[in-house]
Amino acid sequence: MFRSFFYSKTNFYLADSSIEFYRHVEEKGIDLGMKWIGYLWLFNEEDFKKTEKILKEMEKHGGKFIVYDKNELKEKMKINVNAAETNEGKIMNLSNIDIGLFVPKAGKIDVEKLVAFYESEFRRINGEIRYGIEAKRLIVKPRKTLEIPGEPYFWQESTVTGVETNRGIIEADKIIIAAGVWSSKLLDPIGIDSHSKPKKRQIFVIKADENKLLQLLKTTGFNKYNCMPFTILPKPRIFVKPDLEEQSFWIGYADDFNRAYKLEEDPQPEENYYRYGIYPVLSLYLPQFQGKYPINAWAGQYAINTLDQQPVIFEVNSLIIVGAASGSGIMKADAIGRIAAALYYGEKEAELFGEKWFKVSDLGIENRRIEREKFVI
Amino acid sequence: MFRSFFYSKTNFYLADSSIEFYRHVEEKGIDLGMKWIGYLWLFNEEDFKKTEKILKEMEKHGGKFIVYDKNELKEKMKINVNAAETNEGKIMNLSNIDIGLFVPKAGKIDVEKLVAFYESEFRRINGEIRYGIEAKRLIVKPRKTLEIPGEPYFWQESTVTGVETNRGIIEADKIIIAAGVWSSKLLDPIGIDSHSKPKKRQIFVIKADENKLLQLLKTTGFNKYNCMPFTILPKPRIFVKPDLEEQSFWIGYADDFNRAYKLEEDPQPEENYYRYGIYPVLSLYLPQFQGKYPINAWAGQYAINTLDQQPVIFEVNSLIIVGAASGSGIMKADAIGRIAAALYYGEKEAELFGEKWFKVSDLGIENRRIEREKFVI
Repeated sequence: MFRSFFYSKTNFYLADSSIEFYRHVEEKGIDLGMKWIGYLWLFNEEDFKKTEKILKEMEKHGGKFIVYDKNELKEKMKINVNAAETNEGKIMNLSNIDIGLFVPKAGKIDVEKLVAFYESEFRRINGEIRYGIEAKRLIVKPRKTLEIPGEPYFWQESTVTGVETNRGIIEADKIIIAAGVWSSKLLDPIGIDSHSKPKKRQIFVIKADENKLLQLLKTTGFNKYNCMPFTILPKPRIFVKPDLEEQSFWIGYADDFNRAYKLEEDPQPEENYYRYGIYPVLSLYLPQFQGKYPINAWAGQYAINTLDQQPVIFEVNSLIIVGAASGSGIMKADAIGRIAAALYYGEKEAELFGEKWFKVSDLGIENRRIEREKFVI
Repeated sequence: MFRSFFYSKTNFYLADSSIEFYRHVEEKGIDLGMKWIGYLWLFNEEDFKKTEKILKEMEKHGGKFIVYDKNELKEKMKINVNAAETNEGKIMNLSNIDIGLFVPKAGKIDVEKLVAFYESEFRRINGEIRYGIEAKRLIVKPRKTLEIPGEPYFWQESTVTGVETNRGIIEADKIIIAAGVWSSKLLDPIGIDSHSKPKKRQIFVIKADENKLLQLLKTTGFNKYNCMPFTILPKPRIFVKPDLEEQSFWIGYADDFNRAYKLEEDPQPEENYYRYGIYPVLSLYLPQFQGKYPINAWAGQYAINTLDQQPVIFEVNSLIIVGAASGSGIMKADAIGRIAAALYYGEKEAELFGEKWFKVSDLGIENRRIEREKFVI
């Protein structure tokens, strides 16, 4: 998913320039599977009021949104706007739905197509890509080898000279670590913090296998596809992503407290997370989901920057570390790549798509400068 | 060791108020083993010049120091001021010694006595202390139990209600985690970042078993004890801590790059770290150490805040996390304790010793505000 709707300049610059670049690529005839279905956040009156001041400021700076009242939402989506008043709703601390905030400059993109595009561009400039190679270890060597047991010692100038893989050693003058949640596995042993921690995220797929669900999927009036927008429920903020082609919904919730920071090689979705976590909430807000269970599910891990949820891009001893995008990596990927490239070339500012300039050190560690996101919902 | 000599107000407030409190405790007749032996940093001309501007600013704000030239240092400590010019010195990237920066408001303190003091104060207000208890796990429970398998789920209001130990469960309304490098072991499973990473630190003890070393130990003119000051060599900044009573030196070096972030239950000192790391440097700058090897050595771990090297004090779901002091915990401990207590009581400002006020959120995560240390040597 992507959206260009943020209060923080950091978020806005990274996301908007990336999204505009993806749009530009599609306009040049390369399909990235972008669908501008929009985001729809649901609110109760009280919570919406808290956001209104920020929204007005965002509007002044060009942020576009449409506000729907509960009757419109009820009519369009057959949503239960009074969930808070039911017994189950009370037990689950649900909230009524009074308002829908629709953001049109947002939607979905096909990750595989996006990666394939960058791959072909990289190959076009004679870049070489190898799949299925496991980076096992970073190799640190002194600049001048003295053949002392256990060198390099701290008084020796030393640097990362290469990577040991399961298919031999690859040496390089500069190495970029963009290994997601696995970065720490490579960086911890040489005493560098990746500034990210892994947290499991799960997606459950529900088939739109009967009329009510198909109608929800094909909700009209929000976008040109006549597709339900990417919808985020109020308390708890479970999200529903429509997939018109596959006639299904992808459903998830990003739990924070009590969800472990833990690196897993093969994270698994949890049946109970849907059954007792998502299902009772989802089916109360959107009764179309009553009795519906996943036909598919999977899990992955976010590399979370626990301090400000923004990416880190920094250099230590010929090593460039890029990551910690905290779940919004896709929608910022183009900007992150350009900033990493600027760092590689020793430039202070990176030119993002659309002739926007971004100070490289703002996403570094030493002189990090992030504008806090105030549109937090 | 402690010093009240920092540029950054964050560092200064935390360290100075703690040190003044320890002094106050001693003046009230409780021995904390404080010895104001001072810190002596050794510099070459070039590096000292880079620091001079900062030193002048620090002087304006009351920071006291004395500058010694190389002849005085040579005479007092029989130090080799021309190490950079030797063959070995060139290989090891050593530096000549032109200047010594001596800071008198600094010295050592007996950690065990300090802890015993706080313990007795805590018992005096009926605090209970249990030793030898292992905290195994934090217990998270929903506020209202519903007996659903695997609860709490994310729509349930849940909180940390207690700690499972090897001697049963301890419950509490608020729990303070001050578990040093072990904090992550407790916090990661419930999805809270301790904002610290463990890194091994080693100390090697050399006996002052002959005249030259005894003379160095009993260097006169720096302090009233006629004891060598805590001395920090130039490049690499190996430190030498004198122990007049035991007639020995404690020697160490805080290596950063290529020293793993890794939690070890029983970290060990490495013989080669002294032999090939410390010894060749130490014995070239201070020839009194020629042929000297440790009679004792040990290793521990620093809980390092990799972002700004300052402590973190923050609250999440009835849990207060205090730590990440990054190696300067002792000299800031009193202030850290007062700030944690203020957070516990829901106060915005903590009163440090000496009627200084410190904003509690400055050491938190959300609104962290740290002044960078410019006196970095």
